[in-house]
Parts: sequence; structure tokens; C-alpha cells
Amino acid sequence: MSDATKKLEALGKQMVSQVEKGEGPTFETVLRTKSNTIYDEAIGCLRTGDKKELRKFLSMAQARTFMQTVAIGAKTKQFLRENLHTSIRGLFYQLKFTLGEDIDEDLFTEQSESNALIEDIEVALKIKREDLNLTTDRKGFVAGPMTILDRFGGEETLIDLTKQGRSGWSIPSDVDNGMEIKKLDADYVLVVEKDALWQRLNEDKFWKKENCLLVTPKGQSTRGTRRLLRKLADKKLPIYCLMDCDAWGWYIYWTIKTGSMNLAYLGRDFAVPEAKFLGVTMSDIKEFEFLQKLTMKAKDVDVKRAEEMLGYPWINRYADWVRELKMVLKTKKKIEQDALQGQRLTFVGEYINKKIKNKEWLS
Amino acid sequence: MSDATKKLEALGKQMVSQVEKGEGPTFETVLRTKSNTIYDEAIGCLRTGDKKELRKFLSMAQARTFMQTVAIGAKTKQFLRENLHTSIRGLFYQLKFTLGEDIDEDLFTEQSESNALIEDIEVALKIKREDLNLTTDRKGFVAGPMTILDRFGGEETLIDLTKQGRSGWSIPSDVDNGMEIKKLDADYVLVVEKDALWQRLNEDKFWKKENCLLVTPKGQSTRGTRRLLRKLADKKLPIYCLMDCDAWGWYIYWTIKTGSMNLAYLGRDFAVPEAKFLGVTMSDIKEFEFLQKLTMKAKDVDVKRAEEMLGYPWINRYADWVRELKMVLKTKKKIEQDALQGQRLTFVGEYINKKIKNKEWLS
Repeated sequence: MSDATKKLEALGKQMVSQVEKGEGPTFETVLRTKSNTIYDEAIGCLRTGDKKELRKFLSMAQARTFMQTVAIGAKTKQFLRENLHTSIRGLFYQLKFTLGEDIDEDLFTEQSESNALIEDIEVALKIKREDLNLTTDRKGFVAGPMTILDRFGGEETLIDLTKQGRSGWSIPSDVDNGMEIKKLDADYVLVVEKDALWQRLNEDKFWKKENCLLVTPKGQSTRGTRRLLRKLADKKLPIYCLMDCDAWGWYIYWTIKTGSMNLAYLGRDFAVPEAKFLGVTMSDIKEFEFLQKLTMKAKDVDVKRAEEMLGYPWINRYADWVRELKMVLKTKKKIEQDALQGQRLTFVGEYINKKIKNKEWLS
Repeated sequence: MSDATKKLEALGKQMVSQVEKGEGPTFETVLRTKSNTIYDEAIGCLRTGDKKELRKFLSMAQARTFMQTVAIGAKTKQFLRENLHTSIRGLFYQLKFTLGEDIDEDLFTEQSESNALIEDIEVALKIKREDLNLTTDRKGFVAGPMTILDRFGGEETLIDLTKQGRSGWSIPSDVDNGMEIKKLDADYVLVVEKDALWQRLNEDKFWKKENCLLVTPKGQSTRGTRRLLRKLADKKLPIYCLMDCDAWGWYIYWTIKTGSMNLAYLGRDFAVPEAKFLGVTMSDIKEFEFLQKLTMKAKDVDVKRAEEMLGYPWINRYADWVRELKMVLKTKKKIEQDALQGQRLTFVGEYINKKIKNKEWLS
């Protein structure tokens, strides 16, 4: 029996025993509000604090939410028993169907209702939705010296990430359950924001020449990509990131490093405080003359974001980032990682090597 | 020397000879306007017509566009010579850099300028941008009895699509150059709109039980996915599609089948007129009782789209589609493919089998 099943059973038994004692059943979860989101300096990431919330079935305001939570618990316990996975959209339809037969009113009308409750269950029971057989969006890719053992659909497959040609290996929704890193010979992990740059570096066989893992989250990282990076950092591999020098690039980086306010409830399991930011930096624009022609004017969103970031305690503790962001505010410029190909397509690899060799990165 | 290189050289030589004769150089392309977009009944897809456009260098209105076109031709010829690929964003930065040194004015200020000119070159020279070493976005996945030979970055890799675990094989940007289908044992191709449903069917090993290729475009199909489906149809495999019953699902299907107005210039190489629409259909809502609870109210965009589609000659020639769309207008309902999991997660596979067995599909 999986840990998740045990926890769901314990929750159910607690409620039953409350009913048997003549009490109304309750469900204790952790507040996921902004005021209960803290930056944990010791581990270097955002997480939810300790403020609890007690939901009661016998409450006009909470009865509906309470029933919905129990329904999700019961349904995902069924998925675990059947050993079948589905998306949160699939879960929504199952709930809509199951409960619709005897009850006049729909228990769920919008998927957004079930999404929030899944997060409640995750923090309350200290499990991940992936452990409840719920699949999430997947997006990123990896190539390089790593072999994955994938136990899936009753079969075992060894997947050698040096043998994936132009495609690479698609990072799945769940990199924990039924999945193991069997072999890992890389010296470090390079994360590039965009798939186009990943394809460029994959064509140059950068991962082979430099003995690294080449990863792209394809924009913002999925849960699967963040978990995989956490696991690789746990194996003591340095994690270097190459992003656009703009609001979106910074956000993608800081979500990998410390998590984000919205996703703080995921905590350290999905954060990589060890990550370093190789570029593109404002100083690069000074250092590499050809980049000067290829900058763009920063948009309002970029400037506003830089100002906000200077106010975040988990960012302004890093002097190098404060300097970087002040330079953005002063010059009002930004630059994309694609610009690194402007002079010569293969320049990107040289740029990365120089940065790593000389330890030229931001925290 | 590749076909694309030869065509680019011929274009250059023609211009040089025009200059040597004392004429202004010209470039003949095909009009990609709505008025020159036709539905070709013989091949069953949208394509650009035969109206030509002659661009002149010695024209105040056309000089800039002319120079830009020549610059793209020269630059992609260089990529072909170097045997290196990049994205159209990478091309944009290369052009911005190369031409910026001696010329005061930027030849390109926005990427949208270069995008349109790439399309001009594609139709004028009858080549694909992929043949010019330009990579495009990739998105879809495949699993099933097919083996791909991928010659890439100086190496050959055999990729067995029955051995990709939960991830599947990511359909690359270019499925023609350096790529071959080495083994293909499937009886048909099943295309499901969403990755979540692909994952569900992959877990059920649907492709193994039914000996088919399981494909998802992950929403709208990329160029790579459309080319791959065309190639599979050329190998005489039936192509069955399962989409949402809404505006977006129909659009995704018809883009696979006939192409779309915007992308008509791609013509038959990117269209699969043989494709069939398994569902989800309006009749399904009547037939499967459990679906009745899981429909949604059609939005304005769905209704408007259905009305538009009834007016398209390439759609209203099919009586089954006319009936379907009229039912949408009458009931104002829609339904997602995810709803097929509402009753039982594994129902989707049974539904597909029944549809194929009884030939219950729309053209």
C-alpha cells in the first residue's frame, strides 16, 4: 500500500471516528494564503508556514468545500487502488459524473474548485498530487549521460538519454513514482529557457563535449521539470541556468531556485536553491560588443518586475542580483538568449563554457 | 548539394545575370492572399493558387522587402553550407547582426518581417523552411510499432517507439531531412487532441493492444506533426482523429485534413485529406447516456465557428459534417474528449474501438 493510500485511509478513519463519537467530522489543512507564505532562509526557498485551518462539515459556509475535499480523497484513493492515472480534468469529470446520479445539485461546477482542493490535500497530507495518480502538464526535455528506468503500464524500459537523436527525452509529469535514475555520469546540468536554443546546443552535441545534462523547461518549468532538477541537485550536480534577460526569464529562474509565491506550498521538493544564473546578464551587453546591437528596450512589465524583485527578501539578500536589477532600472534594456547566436550560431557553447570556467554567474 | 541549395543558387545567379544585363533584379513569388487561396477538390486540401507577384529591386515600395528576401536567402544558404540549424528567431538575430555593421538603418526591426519573407521563399522556390535548416516549434508525441532512423549531429540513432515508456517520442521540427521511417507495423494511426488523453491511452497500452500508432499533436498541430501524419497516410495507414467537440477541436481536425486558410501555402505536403473524425460528435451525446451530464453550453465562439464552417465549400460538401454542425447550432452544446473518462477511466479505449469497428466517423 502506498504512503498516499495510507494517509487517505487515516484521514477517512479519523472522520468516521468523529462521526461515531457524535461529533461533526473535521479536516485540518495548512493555510495557503500570502500571509502564511514564508521565505525559509535555512533551506533557501519559499514555503507555506505553520498556520492551520480547520474545516468543519457542520458549517453552512464550509459544508460544500468539505464534501468536495472528501470526494476528491475517495476518488483518488480509487485511482490508486485501480493503478490508473488521469489528469485533474479527468478527475473533475469523474467527480461530476459520480456525484451527479443521486444528488440534484452538482458537487462541482468548475474545475477551478477541484484544483484548489487538490492543493489543500497535498499540503494537509504532505503528499504530491503525482502520488495520487494525478498527471500534470509536461513540457521539458533532457539529453546527456543519464539512463532512466521507467516502470510504466506493467513494463520496464531503460531509456538512454544519449540515444534520443534530435528529439531528446520528454520529462514526464511524474519523475518519482515508478521511475529511477539508473546511471548518471554528468558533471553538471545546463538549463536553457527555450527549446530552440536546446535544439541548437543538442545539434552541437554540447552535452557530449562538456559531459553535462542539457535541459530545457520550454519556458516556465513544469512540476516534473522542477522535481527532476531537485533530484539532480540532490546528486550533487551543479545546476546552471541560461535565461532571457527580461521579466519572464528572471521569473523562470527564480521559480526553479526558490519557487514562486503561488506555488510556495510545494516547498523544497520542487525548489533548487543551489541553482546559478549564468546569463544572459546586463554585464554581458557591455562585455560582448556584438550584443549591443541586439538589445531591446525593456518593456514596462520588465521594469516593474525588476522593481518588485528588488523588494523581495529572498532576492535582495544577493548583492549580485541587486546590482543586476539596478542596472536594468538604469539602462532600461533587455536581451534575449537567442541574441547569443547573432554573430555565430555556435557561439552559445563558447559563452557557456567561459561563464562556467570563470565562475561568472549570479546567485 | 541539397535541392534547396541548388534553388537558392539558381535564384542568385538569375539576379546576377539581370544586373549584368543592366536590368534591375527581380524575384517572382506566388501571392499568399486570401483571393489566391483555393480549395483543390482533386487533392482535397487548401493551397495557394497560381497568381504570381513580381518584386523589383528598383522600386521605392519594394526595395526594402527585396533586400530582406535576398538577405534571408544568402543567410540560409550559409546555414546549409555550415550544416547548422537555427530557429527563425536565431535567423532574425543573425540578419540583424550581419547587416548592421556597415548599414546605418536596420534591415529588420521586427521578426514578423522576416517570417513573411520566409513564407515567400518557401512558395517561390517550392521548398520547406525545414529544408533551409530553419527549425520550428515542436510539440506532439507518438508511441507504437514504428522505428525511426535519426541522422543528426553526425550520428545515427535508431529510435524504437515501443520503448519510450511514459514519455513517448517527441515529434521533431523536421521529420524529412536526415530522418527515415525504418520499420512500421501499425494498422492505423490514432490522433488524440490532448496530451492528457494520450497519457491515459499510453498507460492502457492502447497502441500495443490495437497495434496502432498513438499520436497527440498537443492541441493545434505543428508543422512536424502534420508532415509526419502526411507521411504515414502515404504509407496507406488510416488516420483517425479524436478531438473535443468544440470550435478549437474542429479547427485542429480541419487543419490536419485540409490545412487552414493561413497555412494554405503549405499545400498537400502538410495536409491529410484521408483523415477521419471519430469524435467526439454531437450524436455521441445522444448515444452515451452518461455524457449527457457532462456536456457544456457552447460558447459564442463555438457557435460562430460552426456557422462559418457551414459556409466553407471544403466542409459543406460533406453531408455528415453539415448534419453535425447544424446539431451544434440547434442544441448549443459542446463536449470535451476528457468527458469520455467520466464514467470509467478506461472507457476511452472501448469507445475508440467501437467507432473504428463500426466505421462510425465523420469525413
